[in-house]
Amino acid sequence: MEARLQKIKAFVFDVDGVLTDGGILATAEGDLFRVFDAKDSFALRMAYMKGYHVGVITGGVSESIRRRFRTCGVPEENIYLGSRAKIEDFEDFCAKYSLKAEEVMYFGDDLPDIPVMLACGCGVCPSDAVDEVKAAADHIATRAGGKGCAREMIEAVIKMHGKWELDVQDYKSKF
Amino acid sequence: MEARLQKIKAFVFDVDGVLTDGGILATAEGDLFRVFDAKDSFALRMAYMKGYHVGVITGGVSESIRRRFRTCGVPEENIYLGSRAKIEDFEDFCAKYSLKAEEVMYFGDDLPDIPVMLACGCGVCPSDAVDEVKAAADHIATRAGGKGCAREMIEAVIKMHGKWELDVQDYKSKF
Amino acid sequence: MEARLQKIKAFVFDVDGVLTDGGILATAEGDLFRVFDAKDSFALRMAYMKGYHVGVITGGVSESIRRRFRTCGVPEENIYLGSRAKIEDFEDFCAKYSLKAEEVMYFGDDLPDIPVMLACGCGVCPSDAVDEVKAAADHIATRAGGKGCAREMIEAVIKMHGKWELDVQDYKSKF
Amino acid sequence: MEARLQKIKAFVFDVDGVLTDGGILATAEGDLFRVFDAKDSFALRMAYMKGYHVGVITGGVSESIRRRFRTCGVPEENIYLGSRAKIEDFEDFCAKYSLKAEEVMYFGDDLPDIPVMLACGCGVCPSDAVDEVKAAADHIATRAGGKGCAREMIEAVIKMHGKWELDVQDYKSKF
Repeated sequence: MEARLQKIKAFVFDVDGVLTDGGILATAEGDLFRVFDAKDSFALRMAYMKGYHVGVITGGVSESIRRRFRTCGVPEENIYLGSRAKIEDFEDFCAKYSLKAEEVMYFGDDLPDIPVMLACGCGVCPSDAVDEVKAAADHIATRAGGKGCAREMIEAVIKMHGKWELDVQDYKSKF
Repeated sequence: MEARLQKIKAFVFDVDGVLTDGGILATAEGDLFRVFDAKDSFALRMAYMKGYHVGVITGGVSESIRRRFRTCGVPEENIYLGSRAKIEDFEDFCAKYSLKAEEVMYFGDDLPDIPVMLACGCGVCPSDAVDEVKAAADHIATRAGGKGCAREMIEAVIKMHGKWELDVQDYKSKF
Repeated sequence: MEARLQKIKAFVFDVDGVLTDGGILATAEGDLFRVFDAKDSFALRMAYMKGYHVGVITGGVSESIRRRFRTCGVPEENIYLGSRAKIEDFEDFCAKYSLKAEEVMYFGDDLPDIPVMLACGCGVCPSDAVDEVKAAADHIATRAGGKGCAREMIEAVIKMHGKWELDVQDYKSKF
Repeated sequence: MEARLQKIKAFVFDVDGVLTDGGILATAEGDLFRVFDAKDSFALRMAYMKGYHVGVITGGVSESIRRRFRTCGVPEENIYLGSRAKIEDFEDFCAKYSLKAEEVMYFGDDLPDIPVMLACGCGVCPSDAVDEVKAAADHIATRAGGKGCAREMIEAVIKMHGKWELDVQDYKSKF
């Protein structure tokens, strides 16, 4: 596992059930809102500040997702909404930054995530992922979706790389 | 129980307390919003892709409910809002598809659901249903309302039928 | 306790922390939304159908509260918003229906509720009320605020009175 | 610890993960809503009524935060939104009221809070703060963020000062 983590240069996330607890708030206009976790969000910003590539690949299509991750430092072009064949979007992401699959950590929790979990360098799932995803994962986080599983693993990687330190001036200038 | 599940061709759901944890967000305009579960929603889509009939029968009347289930593959005419005598709507659903009651699995959690639970082929309730419903149910799910009880049972039925496999091209074309 | 419950003809509720888990969703316009429980709401409707008087006395002032309880059968004039001296509103409620204090069950969870809990016939608090309220209560529910404490006690009273039975035609005509 | 609490004249809070459970509801317009706790909110009002200074210092920028704390008695000028270098805002707060750092209790849960936790008179964190903050804190509350950690500590301080008593007329006139 340590060897896998050493190589990581990018983090890619499914959204529902990974960066959320799976809850989807349905509004009258048909738009769907999600609850994100502040500690996960801070970890995404740390990843951005420390030079990692970050992306999200989700079946969801809400503008609220796009806006949320933009403010966490995820570039517009790395927010894949309405994704059905996630492996294609994953390959697009890797090609964009000339990343080898083994340099990417991917987080998923349900059947559509499995092809990417098997292809990436380190497939991670929250503690409450479905059984098939747990079986396909390289690592099962101790935390559940939306309850800090992203923070747990981003922090583990960046700490291993010796960069988990907040530079307040950098934070001020980038966010 | 296995014999009951073998016959299932359709899934019908109460909403509050079954596909949600019972929480109802009251807004100033009087509309009521609910939080649905992503893993339940994926199971509804799988049921649709694999050819099962799916319906919801709820006392609620929010447009948000209609829109949510339409995007999960539930046809307009199977979304019964503002239902008071649920058994009548259940009979309408069965007649529409020439289904025998024993071919339908129904999920309920409170008193208004009991007549349908007794009439259908397999009455299921979440682990946090009221006592009278638990007593009337053929099966009590291990999960609570809104926490995956629908996923648990839909998956159990479709797996027993040997069809729990995601066809990405089918997913892409239907959703 | 049984003697107390036998006399109950009315139910009055604090809102935050009793009919909700205490969570208050703050919106940009300044309005505050709450999440109510479907099983509690059904119990309020049963109380209305069976002829009990029902009221809410809350420090909150959102139109969302008024609308929510109107649809549960609580009359406009029994919804006391922006209440500070709750005992005055409690006395107004009792006078309106010529109720003796001992005929009213009141639910509260925090300091402003204590005077009413001491004055009413049966003061009830959720399992997560503050210590001073627990000490002042005649009964501590097994369930927490927003997690069915209202359902638990309304159901206990109506069952003791032998009326906990849903009349579907009555339900249809009144809601 | 008792000696520290005796000196406290002001309470300052981080928002996400302290006065909330860290959940951030992302809407389509990009605004972010939070869920606050009614018992925490009542404690903020008690602090105001009893003459303590209260402030919030948050990285968040939503108008919903400003409005929420205004109704809890926090003056406009003590609501620091979009804060990146929190120690600067903390110093501004102290200077405004001629407070010594040792007279201020500060609540934080994540890395950006650490400089303030070390500078203030009593640094408190919720039970689910990150490890670095727990290590920097003078006291770890028994409750988690958004689940009453603010109430727990405000109440402890005001009780130690012998002022934890609700004056209904005062409440009526101030809120």
